[in-house]
Amino acid sequence: MKPAARLYVEAPLAPGATIPLSEGQAHYLRSVLRLEPGRRVLLFNGREGEWLADLTELRKSGAAATTVSQRRPQAPEPDLWLLFAPIKGDRVDYVAEKATELGASRLQPVMTRHTVVGRVNIERLRARAVEAAEQCERLSVPEVAAPRPLREVLEAWPAGRRLFACAEAGPARPFAEALAQAPRDAPSGLLVGPEGGFSPDELDLLRELAFVTPVGLGPRLLRADTAAIAALALWQALAGDGDRRPPPRFEN
Amino acid sequence: MKPAARLYVEAPLAPGATIPLSEGQAHYLRSVLRLEPGRRVLLFNGREGEWLADLTELRKSGAAATTVSQRRPQAPEPDLWLLFAPIKGDRVDYVAEKATELGASRLQPVMTRHTVVGRVNIERLRARAVEAAEQCERLSVPEVAAPRPLREVLEAWPAGRRLFACAEAGPARPFAEALAQAPRDAPSGLLVGPEGGFSPDELDLLRELAFVTPVGLGPRLLRADTAAIAALALWQALAGDGDRRPPPRFEN
Repeated sequence: MKPAARLYVEAPLAPGATIPLSEGQAHYLRSVLRLEPGRRVLLFNGREGEWLADLTELRKSGAAATTVSQRRPQAPEPDLWLLFAPIKGDRVDYVAEKATELGASRLQPVMTRHTVVGRVNIERLRARAVEAAEQCERLSVPEVAAPRPLREVLEAWPAGRRLFACAEAGPARPFAEALAQAPRDAPSGLLVGPEGGFSPDELDLLRELAFVTPVGLGPRLLRADTAAIAALALWQALAGDGDRRPPPRFEN
Repeated sequence: MKPAARLYVEAPLAPGATIPLSEGQAHYLRSVLRLEPGRRVLLFNGREGEWLADLTELRKSGAAATTVSQRRPQAPEPDLWLLFAPIKGDRVDYVAEKATELGASRLQPVMTRHTVVGRVNIERLRARAVEAAEQCERLSVPEVAAPRPLREVLEAWPAGRRLFACAEAGPARPFAEALAQAPRDAPSGLLVGPEGGFSPDELDLLRELAFVTPVGLGPRLLRADTAAIAALALWQALAGDGDRRPPPRFEN
């Protein structure tokens, strides 16, 4: 039986466990999908894989599902951070959605000199990431970190993690070429600047840091959201899990 | 002097030519950017490169600019078609914008068995493509073709053009691997299905056609818009112009 929904939960997943669902999830299952108790759903929590479960309770104030069997064990996922200067309106939500689909493990908003958006609604980005993870069959939800100044993030950069900085101006290697020489599956970060680009002193700083590789994404000036999506897709294809396939579909 | 705007025009561009601008462009220059006659702009028409020009007329009903000098000659661009099943709402506009930024030469909406959107507003997609071409410094605007049934497009497929079909189910080669063996700069097409995927008979048809390579984009189920953007970015990086750089910026 094809599951009627796929939900991210916080609770531990184990055989025969009864998992509480939130008020929001109960509303979605009852009022949007119009499900009844007894329907099959999928649950994942980022730690214990993905489980088939049956809806056992479905009330206005909440719901619950009882696990039936594990469909997929938890599997390691690429360790890929996306650092991005917040952009306006819907576009930042779109970045959160696409970064989740493209397998980022962490979304880190960074404030740069030309960042024009002062406030980031982290809770909204998290909600969008959860929704995208549920849709795309990921076994985890990326962490959405609180915004920090770019310099601070660079100063605290962990040893052993490379940072590919998308640079429209100045010298940069084609990203595909840089990735061809990078080790596969190594902890990495991608940095995408604001619509106005990095400032000259930010570019100088980035070029000085040994863990940074400035990379180019071709001859067209990409919007910040496009650059983020393109860079994520390239990293996954050339250094991540692009050679893997989605899980088999359920028969109807 | 940094140009105040970059505009796509239809008229031939030549030294000292006076180029009529549309009512919409006049409104944008006057009321949105609040420019005055005498200001410098950039013009391109997809045939004769990019030109510096001075605004010579700026009225409610229209405007005109006179070319000063050519900034960049017309250059060949990748010959890359994007075939996509129309999707709902803003997402199809987003695909038009991103495909333009990522250098598609032609956008071809295709109707498949699981396509749920019956009508495509081609004029709106064209307007979005023009806007994106103006922003991203392209020298051309992609053609936006009228929607056609997938089968018809496949039956009329031109000799010598490979089609990479993004397939979530069934056998497929990792797209990066398929591209590594494809000739660079060869006429190509990318096919992205609707949110419900291709039907089994469509998948069978695609696998039978010698010019089609079914390709995979990793283990997560991508939304149709994400798949289109990821595929375009990969093609440009590995078989297109991803090793080129944007033109130098204007000094302020």
